[in-house]
Order: sequence, then C-alpha cells, then structure tokens
Amino acid sequence: MIAARLYGPRDMRIEEMPEPPPPGPGEVQLRVTSVGICGSDLHQWAIGQIGNASAAGPVVLGHEFAGVVTAVGPGVEGLTIGQRVAADPAIPCWRCEMCRMGHPNLCRRLHFCGLWPDDGALRERLNHPADACFPLPEALSDDEGAMLEPLGIGIHAMDLAKLRVAHSVAVLGCGGIGLLLIRLARLAGARPIFATDRVPHRLAAARRYGADEVFNVTEVDPVAAVLRATGGRGVDVALEAAWADETVEQAAEMARMGGRVVLVGIPAEDALHMRASTARRKGLTIVFSRRMKHTYPRAIALAQAGDVDLRGLVTHRFPLARAADAFRLAETYADGALRVVVEVSRS
Amino acid sequence: MIAARLYGPRDMRIEEMPEPPPPGPGEVQLRVTSVGICGSDLHQWAIGQIGNASAAGPVVLGHEFAGVVTAVGPGVEGLTIGQRVAADPAIPCWRCEMCRMGHPNLCRRLHFCGLWPDDGALRERLNHPADACFPLPEALSDDEGAMLEPLGIGIHAMDLAKLRVAHSVAVLGCGGIGLLLIRLARLAGARPIFATDRVPHRLAAARRYGADEVFNVTEVDPVAAVLRATGGRGVDVALEAAWADETVEQAAEMARMGGRVVLVGIPAEDALHMRASTARRKGLTIVFSRRMKHTYPRAIALAQAGDVDLRGLVTHRFPLARAADAFRLAETYADGALRVVVEVSRS
Amino acid sequence: MIAARLYGPRDMRIEEMPEPPPPGPGEVQLRVTSVGICGSDLHQWAIGQIGNASAAGPVVLGHEFAGVVTAVGPGVEGLTIGQRVAADPAIPCWRCEMCRMGHPNLCRRLHFCGLWPDDGALRERLNHPADACFPLPEALSDDEGAMLEPLGIGIHAMDLAKLRVAHSVAVLGCGGIGLLLIRLARLAGARPIFATDRVPHRLAAARRYGADEVFNVTEVDPVAAVLRATGGRGVDVALEAAWADETVEQAAEMARMGGRVVLVGIPAEDALHMRASTARRKGLTIVFSRRMKHTYPRAIALAQAGDVDLRGLVTHRFPLARAADAFRLAETYADGALRVVVEVSRS
Amino acid sequence: MIAARLYGPRDMRIEEMPEPPPPGPGEVQLRVTSVGICGSDLHQWAIGQIGNASAAGPVVLGHEFAGVVTAVGPGVEGLTIGQRVAADPAIPCWRCEMCRMGHPNLCRRLHFCGLWPDDGALRERLNHPADACFPLPEALSDDEGAMLEPLGIGIHAMDLAKLRVAHSVAVLGCGGIGLLLIRLARLAGARPIFATDRVPHRLAAARRYGADEVFNVTEVDPVAAVLRATGGRGVDVALEAAWADETVEQAAEMARMGGRVVLVGIPAEDALHMRASTARRKGLTIVFSRRMKHTYPRAIALAQAGDVDLRGLVTHRFPLARAADAFRLAETYADGALRVVVEVSRS
Repeated sequence: MIAARLYGPRDMRIEEMPEPPPPGPGEVQLRVTSVGICGSDLHQWAIGQIGNASAAGPVVLGHEFAGVVTAVGPGVEGLTIGQRVAADPAIPCWRCEMCRMGHPNLCRRLHFCGLWPDDGALRERLNHPADACFPLPEALSDDEGAMLEPLGIGIHAMDLAKLRVAHSVAVLGCGGIGLLLIRLARLAGARPIFATDRVPHRLAAARRYGADEVFNVTEVDPVAAVLRATGGRGVDVALEAAWADETVEQAAEMARMGGRVVLVGIPAEDALHMRASTARRKGLTIVFSRRMKHTYPRAIALAQAGDVDLRGLVTHRFPLARAADAFRLAETYADGALRVVVEVSRS
Repeated sequence: MIAARLYGPRDMRIEEMPEPPPPGPGEVQLRVTSVGICGSDLHQWAIGQIGNASAAGPVVLGHEFAGVVTAVGPGVEGLTIGQRVAADPAIPCWRCEMCRMGHPNLCRRLHFCGLWPDDGALRERLNHPADACFPLPEALSDDEGAMLEPLGIGIHAMDLAKLRVAHSVAVLGCGGIGLLLIRLARLAGARPIFATDRVPHRLAAARRYGADEVFNVTEVDPVAAVLRATGGRGVDVALEAAWADETVEQAAEMARMGGRVVLVGIPAEDALHMRASTARRKGLTIVFSRRMKHTYPRAIALAQAGDVDLRGLVTHRFPLARAADAFRLAETYADGALRVVVEVSRS
Repeated sequence: MIAARLYGPRDMRIEEMPEPPPPGPGEVQLRVTSVGICGSDLHQWAIGQIGNASAAGPVVLGHEFAGVVTAVGPGVEGLTIGQRVAADPAIPCWRCEMCRMGHPNLCRRLHFCGLWPDDGALRERLNHPADACFPLPEALSDDEGAMLEPLGIGIHAMDLAKLRVAHSVAVLGCGGIGLLLIRLARLAGARPIFATDRVPHRLAAARRYGADEVFNVTEVDPVAAVLRATGGRGVDVALEAAWADETVEQAAEMARMGGRVVLVGIPAEDALHMRASTARRKGLTIVFSRRMKHTYPRAIALAQAGDVDLRGLVTHRFPLARAADAFRLAETYADGALRVVVEVSRS
Repeated sequence: MIAARLYGPRDMRIEEMPEPPPPGPGEVQLRVTSVGICGSDLHQWAIGQIGNASAAGPVVLGHEFAGVVTAVGPGVEGLTIGQRVAADPAIPCWRCEMCRMGHPNLCRRLHFCGLWPDDGALRERLNHPADACFPLPEALSDDEGAMLEPLGIGIHAMDLAKLRVAHSVAVLGCGGIGLLLIRLARLAGARPIFATDRVPHRLAAARRYGADEVFNVTEVDPVAAVLRATGGRGVDVALEAAWADETVEQAAEMARMGGRVVLVGIPAEDALHMRASTARRKGLTIVFSRRMKHTYPRAIALAQAGDVDLRGLVTHRFPLARAADAFRLAETYADGALRVVVEVSRS
C-alpha cells in the first residue's frame, strides 16, 4: 500500500509500505479516509521535531483522521466492518498511575499515532485499538471526523480554562485550534471574546467562529488593545494557541488580576517568555494543556448538534499522492487556508 | 406615596406610606419602574413565610426591580439624577468574614429589600445603596432591568454547577428561574438539556429557552425518561428549580455517577426528601445555591449582547394599584403566565 | 478449607468450602492473615443488607484484609510467593467511563470482595487481582495491613473534604472510620477538631487520635456544643461517620456558612434527614463519599511513617473458628472494643 | 520620634521623624514592638526595588510587625489601649472587584505598610486600620506576633498548593518563608517533604521544621536527587521560595506529571526561566502566590496551638538604632541567621 513518509525537514516521500497485519485482540483495521494537517505536524515537517522531541528515522505523519473499519480483531465489540469512525490517535497504557487517576493524556507509556516511532495515518490502512475508534454519526462527513481531533484538543483546553458564562476571553492565534477555541468559548457563554493573529483571512474566520473583536498584531499592540477594550481590567481567561513565543507573554499581560492563562500552543524553542513581575503581581495561574482526555464523545455530541462548524475549517483537500503539496500550502497559510486535509480515500 | 403591603396570606393592601427620607451617605433615591414577582414572593403571599422564616408584621414585597435615580446622597459617584438602574436587592455588610472571603450572599447581617423587616419595591420610591444600583444600558427596558435579578440568581447557580461544554443537564421546574437556567445551560454549551414541569405552556417556553427535550411530569416519570434518554447514564448536572419536594429526589435520581445536583428552589416545608442510598452509591455532590454574588455586571453583559431573552419572560403587566391581581395570576400560572410584572411607573 | 459464611441475620457458620482454583492471569492466591470487621460488615451481620442492597444467598464477609502470596498467576509482575500484602477489596473494571475518568470507586461493574455475590476474606485462601495487592513494608503488621482499608476510606473522604490547614472540623461518630478521620484531620492541619459519640471509650480514643474537644451526645446537645465552642460560627468541615440518621442533620447544623459536609457513614434506612432551610441558608455543599480511589499507596506511606497509629485501633483478636464471637463483640462495643480483627492465620 | 529610613541601596539612616497624628476613624495608634526583616525588605535594601517596582524617595521599611495599642480612633470596636496586636501590613480598599470577590491580596488600590510611598514599621509609632490589627494571645511573644506575617504568607501559598495528606512536596529555598512552608506542608500531612538550599544551617533548620530529606545544591543536583528519591515520579507539589531564577526551572523539573508548582519567591530579575517543553509535557499548573488573604486568624490559631514554632525562626535581635546592622546580617545569612528582628520597644 501507499504511504507518505517524512524523511527529514520538508522531505516527504510517497512510497510503498507493507500492509498492516490482521488486527490483534481489541484492534480494528481501518481504511483511512480523511487526514487533517495540524500545527504540530508542521513543526515536524519544517524542522523534524516537535517541542524538543525529534524523530530518529522516517515516520508517517497524520493523527487527525477518520476511516472505515475493514477488519475486526478478536474480542472487539460494538464495531463492525463498514463502520465509519473517527480515531483518537492517543493510545495510553490504561494501567499506570496517571491513566488510573483519570489522566491518560499524561501517560508516560502512551503511543501516539503519527509521532515517531509510531507511524500515523498518511497511509491507506492501519490497525488501531477499537476503544479509540468512535462511530461517526451519519450526519458527519469524513473531514468532520478528522476534525474531531482538534475539537477534542480544544475541549480539553477549555475544560482547563474553567470558564463561566459571561467571562471574558482572549484567544491568541487563529489557526485551526485557535478558531475552535473561539467557537468553544462562545459556546461556553464567554462574552466578550477577543482574538489576535497576523493573517487577515484567519482573523476574518475568527469573527465567523464567534470573536467579538479581532486584532491584527501587525497593526496594533494586542495587549494594549485588549486592555483598552476591557477598561484596563484584562480578560478572565487568556488562551494561547499561536505557537509563537511572544504570545505567551501577551497572554499573561492580557489576563486580569487573578486570571487564568491556558497555554495550548507548542513553542518552537524551549524558553518560556513571560514577565515574572506581571504574573506574580496578578497572582496568575498558568496551565499547560497537554493533548486531551475523554473528549471524543463530547466532541461528537457538539458536532452532531451543529454547535461547532467543523466543515468550515477545511478549506483545501489533496489526494495522498500530493501530501507534500498539502503541507506546503498549510505552512504558508496561502490562498485563505485554514485546515488542509489529505483525502486518502472516500467512504 | 402609594405602596402594596402584605398583611398576611393573600391579604395585600394598597395604601399610603410615608415618603422615604433624603438618601443618606452612599445612597440614592429611586423612583421604582418595574417589579417582577418571584417564586419566593409567592411563598410569602401564600403562607406568609419563606423557608422557615416568617414576617412578624406587614411588609412591602418586591425585590426584582428597576428604577430611575431621583436623588443622590453624599459621597455617591457614578450615578446622576435621571439614570435608569437595575437594583440588586441584597445589601451585605461587606465587613464580616463571609463578605470579605467573597461570599456576600452568605452575610449574616445582610439586609434584603422585600424581606421582612425590610420593605421592598412595590412602592413608588425607595432609598438604596448606590453600589447596589447598576446603570441600565439604553437597549434594556425597565422590565428587563427587573429581570436581571432572576438572571443573576441563575448565573450564580450555574457557577455552582461547574458546567463544561457538552455536559448534559436536567432542569427540574420551568418557572422564571428554571427557564433562565435552561437558557444559561445552553449558553454554557450544555448538550443535551432536559426540562421537566407540569404546566404545558411552561414546557413550551422551556423549548424556546433551549431545552432539547421536555417531560411533563403529569404524563411521564421524569426520572425514567431522563435515564432512558441518556442510555441509563444520567446527566452530569441536575438543577432543581421547582420548589417541589419530590423534585429534589428526582434530581438525585437523574444525576450520573459522581454527578452534581444544584438545589436552587426553596422547599415549602423543611424536610429534605432524597434516597440516601442512591446519593451515596453515586457519590453525588449536592450544592445548595443561596442568592447570588457579583453577578449583576455579568447579567447585564449577557442581556445586552442578546445572549438571554429577558423580554420573553414577562408575559403580564399590572399597575401598582392592581398588585394583588398580579400575585393571583402569578400563583395560578393561568393564561400562559411566566413572569408577571408590576409596572409601578414608566421611565 | 474453612470459611465463615453468613446465612442470614446473625447466622454465621464455620464450614468447609472448596479451595480456590489456581490463580488466573493477573491474579495471585493469598493465604489470608488478618481480617478487620467494619461497620458495613455489621450492617450485613445484623440485618442481612447494606444500604438498600441485600444478599440473595450465603456470603463470606471480610473486606479489610492482609495475606501472604502463595501462588502467582500468569503475567503477574512484582509479586512473589511469600510476599506479605494488603489487599484492596474493590475490583473495578478499569474500562468504563467512570474508571477511565479516574473514579474506579464509582464503577458500576465493580466487584467487591465480601459483598454478595462475591465472597470475602473470612476464609483461609482466596484469589485476588495482583494489582489490588500492595506489598506490606516490614514495619507493618498483618493487622495494620488489614487496617489500611479503613485508612484508605478515610483518606478518600478527607480528599473530598478539601481541608486546608487551620480549618476547623467536626467528626460525628468515633468508630474505626471516625477515629481515622480525626487522625487524618489532625494530620491535615485541622484546628480545632471536635468529635461526638455516645460511647465513653470511643470518645477517649477520639482524644488520643487528635480531637481537641469531645462531646458525648447522651450528655450534651452536640450541635449547641460545637456552635458554642466556635463562637456561633460553626466548623469549616463536618464529617459524618456515625451511621446514625440524626448525625446527618447534626453535621449540617454544625457547619459554617458556606461550609462543607462529607457523609462517610452508611444510613441504616433510606431517608435523609436534614433541615432543608438550614442547608439552603448556609449555602452548604454536601458530598457523599463512596469507597476510595488510588489511596493504598498513600495509606501505606502514612502508616509506615508513623503518621497514623493503626495498631491502636485493633483492640480484640479472634481466630477464624470464633468469627461469630468477633461480630458479637464488635456490634456491642463492649469491653472497650474499637476495631475487632479475625486472625485467620499468622504470617 | 525615631525611624530607620532607607535612602538608597544599603543607605539606611536613623533619624527623627514627626509623630503620627491622632488615629483617624477606624484606626488605632500602635507603639511598635518587634519588626522582622523579610526577603523582600532585603531586595529593597540591596537594590532599592522589589520585583520591578522601585522607590522614588526615602522610605521606612518594615511590614512584619507587632505593637501595642496606644490610642484608639473614632468608631473602633474590640481594641483598647494596652492591647498587644499583630498587624497585617496590607490595607486593601475593600470596595473594588477583587476585594469584593474575596481577593484583597489582588486589590489594585492596596496600600502596603513599608512599601514606598507608604512608610513601614521601623519607627516608634504608627497609625494602622483597626481591622488589620489582630489581638495577640498571651502565649505569643512580640517576635511571634511579627512572625505571623510570614506565616500568613505561607498559609496562603499552601492554600494555593491544594495539598492532600500523603502528597509529596519539595520546597526550594529554606529562608524564613521556605522553613514555614516546610512546617506547613508537614502540618498538612505531606509525606515525604524534600528541601533544597545552599546554606548548611538553613538546611539543618529545614530538618527541624519537618523536611524528610534535604539537598545542598552546591553538592548535588537537586532535580536529580528529588527524582531519584521518588523513583523518577517527581513530587505532587513543588513550592519555590528561593528568590533565585534557576529554582523556578528546578521546581518544574521536580514536579510529577500533572503536578502543581507554586511560586512564592520574588525573582530578582524579570525573566522567567523554565523549560517550556517540560512544563507542557507534564501538563503542569503554575500558580503565582501574591501576598495573603484572610490568613491572620488561622496563623494565630496555629501558633497558639503550638503547631508552628515561630520562636525558633528568630535567631538575632537588634535595637532600632542598629537597624542597618540587622539588615547587613540578614543579607549575609552569617552566624546561623534565619530571621533577624528589630526590637523597636518591649511590650
């Protein structure tokens, strides 16, 4: 079968790869349909690493994905051949202290589909644990199935935000995750919601997803703008999803006294830039959001109810053979790109 | 000036009352415009007491109200004559342990406008602390100003619910508070939302305010219905706002394992009916909601943004001279009544 | 092998029972050493049920226990023959929503060693999941190993209490759990700690375990006493561990405005007695504590460090052949009994 | 009267200063007895600023202090001439949003006794709000009265730590605050407790205050040492109280997956050093502790019960005339110095 393999920075090759073996106990085999390209994929694409973790060999990327069940391993219940599913890429051990305390997102033995050494979904078929495969309702497309992953990331970050109705929110960065955070903040009753970015079409999307006011950081100082808009008070919760280092400091500067800062982005370098005096004076709480937990059923419920528009996120679609073109578009944000999807097959 | 005074069960008299003195330091004098009738008013109207507290003499009811500033006491800043305001009826001491810990709703020295021995707003003019008077935006009517009080009650209860997006919710009782809870739960991203009541037009309103499914308790067992609709799991949060004793037990029976029950209603009698074994097995948390705290600014923000429809809540309007008729209508829920308002004057 | 089987109220028979099969995958076989008798055992002993759950046939009680590993099933790591262990009696499924969210204590598919239909530890040998068997440090005796179970129950309840240093606490009921709650409250920095009971030697033990003041409910009104001792304020946290119905109401009456009530006891009947008006006025939070979660390692750490005296809890010891005598003593609290232990064998 | 005034880095002058006026409404006049020297005082002493705030003129330092009431202003209740008191140096407005939400420590209009432009307690007499003066029990000395301030700081930080019994803790930095945090962690049931510092006599004190293991950072890598001691897991809570920049990063590196880091120290420079990848992978929560709130009564309760040894903290005592010597000793940690006190007068 065919796969798109990353050999190094911007070196992605379409090549033959062995078929997966028959699914083992508790596993299903999936024919991959839609695969989204995420900011963390772009980190790997551009510099061959994510955070400070780097791949030691070629790897198949792709962790936002949907597929169709083509084979069912022993002991699997509730899934049958032909079932369309969305897949949670994280495979925790379910036995360690963190898993048993309800934090599988912090499992140290976790495997993650699409993070070296585990190959991801940019290939025709793969095996996956059945309990990480969630049946897709009729109403949701394959692309929407793939977009449930970033939606789950957003839900987890929003849980950490401990938002209440009529709390004010700033979202820094309007990529796919940022847009979903804006929509989730609106859905959670936040008012007002501010959004910042440097790309005009992403700021336009931010408005569509529910931002009350948007600030282009190339034109205005976003901290000053948010403080002015809140009468100097700052926002109850600042959500950083920009992958840029200055945005961490901006988030802290925008937060109100006693406010909450949730860091969802993955910094390109390892330093954390934040004025200690500001954070200390305000008595801030800074929360680092890692992956997600238990959020697929909730993501499905929201998407199915029409509470979150996942279709509007996907602006471009490429076949697997042109996966590298998909990455090249995604990293430039050209042509109005929000989320770019690789259509491996159709369900 | 004229006031509506309650002398005993259903004995409300329109009579002359002395004008209030000039406003003292930190106070303003208000010409009352709109006054809502609340479930707790109806308790007092019907049996002369609320919870187990009873009035020892005649009292002017009315604690959901708006007015116009007609005089300003010494030291008041930010309010001028002619300003339309919504009034928070609670006057905490701001000095006791509870006030200083951020819980003015639990102040033991609190005065409450419309709770014996403190006269309420069913009169032409009254003095009120300036910092309990919130300027009404142009876009909000006097009735909406009065309805900010129950909205604030709802916001406080919703804060206690610690709701997250895509949590499921049941609201038991679709009076004014119940309807606002439904709307706030929808606003907070709850999905699905169930509502129960015995009055058809209130259940119809529940749908308008955001309930996904409504159950008429005269036709179906609401506990069985909610459990069926959730596949036996129960809801993440059950909000009791029915003032009926069986609803407390129903709320506990509807909640999921480890779920949260928020009691917003005021039981007519003092016993708390709940099966201990159910609550214990589920490891429930039961929270009693008392009044509100710091919620007026948030209530105004939501109403002004159009997030909550307060106009739709007010179905009937009576002049002060017919205040008793207003109460008689409100207690019967006849004629499609949701919230009944006494229009003391017009701004 | 020999077991003590309960056939009905106070009808416990010592009889032959088949040996357990060889331990299955992930299981070990234990030779039981020490078994404690808990309040919930006494419920079953006296009325054949616990809460509103009743046994449909004879059952071997015993869920507070230690043992020695005598055989190791396939796939077990970290346990070897001869290892002394304390056993967590709860066997959750680890796969359902509650288990995966970190609440195995709320697992609906949970098996519980010593709760019908699952036989408990009042027998010579049994099989148990290896991951529910915790190696006993050299310094801890078998009796202490058995007492880790009630200590774990206490730790879980204390977690729910969200206590902070210098918070005031009342513990209602000074049985084994109550005494451990007192000690844990002291360990958590509570000050002052009040304790109530009707049995003088249990109140004396309460002082030893850390109560600052004790009240005998046959002599004084405990609510009045606690309110007097706190200057009318009430305690930050009230922990009910008395299995008596009036104590639930007393706990609510003793709590301060905005206080927290944790219900650890198991009511004999199903009604919950509490004055709704008190709970509502105070804005109380009532938490039902169910079993425990993830607490054995912490219980061992505390016992090993000498932070909790588990030896002092065990006042009487009976051989398995006299298990019924152990129950008879335990239910009367005669002879200064605190915790009564059945010594099935010696390690 | 005499005061010790700081004119610039290490330029402290003993000079005449006008007597305070008679106490105003709600104020008392105090004859100062004992004044402790805190790390933040040493910042001002050494570089003329604290965090990034600098004094624009000479200032009287001293915010940890006790005194005797010598005059009582109008409207003051509960304090009489001759009463020994401990004083909370913070004077919040009690009217702003933060104060009313229960966070007076975050009041933007707060005055702070001993922080420019507000003169502190290194003078013979001063006026102070009566409700910030707490009667000292007979059993507590003036020095202990002064030490209630750092104890309050510690209690607030410990509240933010949300510690549970048998949680593991690391305290980085064993100055006065660090030692109190160690004692409070022990008091809160933490087990084990690790402490790090570079000064041998402070590490010895850390053992006395309750640390299970101490690490001298000049001899061992404290992160490696803590990870080794916890089997690689890290601690549940890391409390940074070292005022050193590397300790912030160390705290993050010592915390377990999903752990909590509380920053109590005040960094000398404005950069926050922490590896973003570590914090993100672990899903850490970082909390900045600012001042304290509502903690004096609890601090007094603990000190009075003997739960915290405040006497042992005070190693040196200087008269007001030699205040500069006190600062010189305090900044060098020479001669076994822990907390150095200026004895302005004796009660």
